[in-house]
Amino acid sequence: MAIPKRKLVIGIDLGGTNMQIGVVDPLYKIPGRSKKKTRAIEGMQKVLDRIVDGVSEACQEAGVAVKDIAALGIGAPGAIDPAAGVVVQAPNLNWHNVPLAMLLKKRLNIPVVVDNDVNVAVYGEWRLGAGKGVTDMLGVWLGTGVGGGMILNSKLYYGGFFTAGEIGHNVLFPGAPPGTRKVEDCCSRTAVVRHILQLIHTGRKSVIPEMCGGDLSEIRAKTVSMAYEKNDLPTREVIDNAAELLGIVVANAVTLLSLPRVVLGGGLTEAMGDALVKPVREATRRYVFPDVLKKVEVVATKLEANAGLLGAALLAQEAAGLAKAPVTK
Amino acid sequence: MAIPKRKLVIGIDLGGTNMQIGVVDPLYKIPGRSKKKTRAIEGMQKVLDRIVDGVSEACQEAGVAVKDIAALGIGAPGAIDPAAGVVVQAPNLNWHNVPLAMLLKKRLNIPVVVDNDVNVAVYGEWRLGAGKGVTDMLGVWLGTGVGGGMILNSKLYYGGFFTAGEIGHNVLFPGAPPGTRKVEDCCSRTAVVRHILQLIHTGRKSVIPEMCGGDLSEIRAKTVSMAYEKNDLPTREVIDNAAELLGIVVANAVTLLSLPRVVLGGGLTEAMGDALVKPVREATRRYVFPDVLKKVEVVATKLEANAGLLGAALLAQEAAGLAKAPVTK
Repeated sequence: MAIPKRKLVIGIDLGGTNMQIGVVDPLYKIPGRSKKKTRAIEGMQKVLDRIVDGVSEACQEAGVAVKDIAALGIGAPGAIDPAAGVVVQAPNLNWHNVPLAMLLKKRLNIPVVVDNDVNVAVYGEWRLGAGKGVTDMLGVWLGTGVGGGMILNSKLYYGGFFTAGEIGHNVLFPGAPPGTRKVEDCCSRTAVVRHILQLIHTGRKSVIPEMCGGDLSEIRAKTVSMAYEKNDLPTREVIDNAAELLGIVVANAVTLLSLPRVVLGGGLTEAMGDALVKPVREATRRYVFPDVLKKVEVVATKLEANAGLLGAALLAQEAAGLAKAPVTK
Repeated sequence: MAIPKRKLVIGIDLGGTNMQIGVVDPLYKIPGRSKKKTRAIEGMQKVLDRIVDGVSEACQEAGVAVKDIAALGIGAPGAIDPAAGVVVQAPNLNWHNVPLAMLLKKRLNIPVVVDNDVNVAVYGEWRLGAGKGVTDMLGVWLGTGVGGGMILNSKLYYGGFFTAGEIGHNVLFPGAPPGTRKVEDCCSRTAVVRHILQLIHTGRKSVIPEMCGGDLSEIRAKTVSMAYEKNDLPTREVIDNAAELLGIVVANAVTLLSLPRVVLGGGLTEAMGDALVKPVREATRRYVFPDVLKKVEVVATKLEANAGLLGAALLAQEAAGLAKAPVTK
């Protein structure tokens, strides 16, 4: 069946390491996609070149021309002013006040909307995935760091400085050594791998060295998940602790914002699944106030690695008038 | 000058201990007021009787009849459904699903709006006091407990269960003994008085016993403030610690919500002023992320004890069409 032209949009998940580009149809299928390294170190123009190339490739796979695309949405890491289409500050890309929407529109000649990478993933989950049906939710993305985003009153929430959602930088242990004080220092994939390695280096027995063929630089989220399933004690200790700490900070956000749902995503969540989500859910419910908040649903991402791409595509659909954003309450 | 009739509203701050009732004119002056004990223990009907009596007294003082009042706004402690005008749950009053707006409307024959007591105080500060000019703010009220409320996108924020703002129930020390884990356990007036007394009971020298004529049950927020000014060491230790802890939890909220302003209120803030607000501001700025949030303004209430009454009056004005709520962004 031919895809109706001008009903297609492009969604881009622009990360510090990789970019995911997809042509998205009205049923949220992805008939064409492309994945590239970001390589921000080569400078902004080169990153833009790779985005433009990736868009062409994805369009080619979908059997359409770029001019047949109604709009493009892109999620970028950092503080974004979505109304202006500007990347205000993106340390991972070393970008400062980059008018990304305008620059891409010039190159591709289609409307472009920009938002924060975690925001677009959270928006995707809210509209199409694990966040459906609630007016208020928090998304927490566990990967290299810990990112977050919020839907409040049925709308992405940005805050006064466009930096809302940085739950990974909430302080847990103010007196602890630098690098061990924040949620991100305890609950990111990077952090749990580091803490498991520390235990192994002190002589604790673990299945992990064998699983990586002795190369401990090769520990991935999947490795952690498999070791956890094998009841590896250092892994259990670190993950269970991280889940408890994440539960506390999530509970504090739920208490402050009276949230009916929290969606966990990111590479670590995708790899661990319920082994991580269940203890976080239990800890969250233990620490919330008042009791009515024990109803809070703490659930795993449904869109997984496509959350950002699809969320960015949704924003593009809305910009092109192909879909309407839900009404706020 | 005669007060134009039907331009007056009534604002009520209904607390667990006292109720403040005021007739409020279009310039936010209070030409008539009344203060009564709440005495919730005598049952809801008696509380309603006292509200109705207080309304009459305040009207009398203002030289108007109740029928000349355009609308009444009331802030009540607990989870409120403002659209339904229902007190969903108010432990301090022992009320559960009380249709307060409907009951008061029946008695007084004027439109009634209900909201949470801290919410109305925060709304008052935002419209008329220390919160003016921002689209997003957090209010933290330090008194018997620690309450909170938020303006997000230029609107009072309620959350999915109408309980938003309970920052006093955020957990600081999950492993600590019960009664010492939460913000409220460390930073309320009740808590700082308890902790100062604990130090005195261990034999620490303090000016406080002399200040209260030996009756340590007579310590008020003003006593704490005066002891602090006199460089009383136990008082300094407890207050400085409470300010640091409050700064951490406020910083976490500012980081999560990207807030340009935080207003501190309640009896302890009113008594201590800058001696409390300044260290909270400094701690907040130390713990926020990213750096742009170091611009966050942490300021004291301007409306002080009238914040709740005036905030409730503002909501009444809006309900009566005498004023318009600001447009949300």
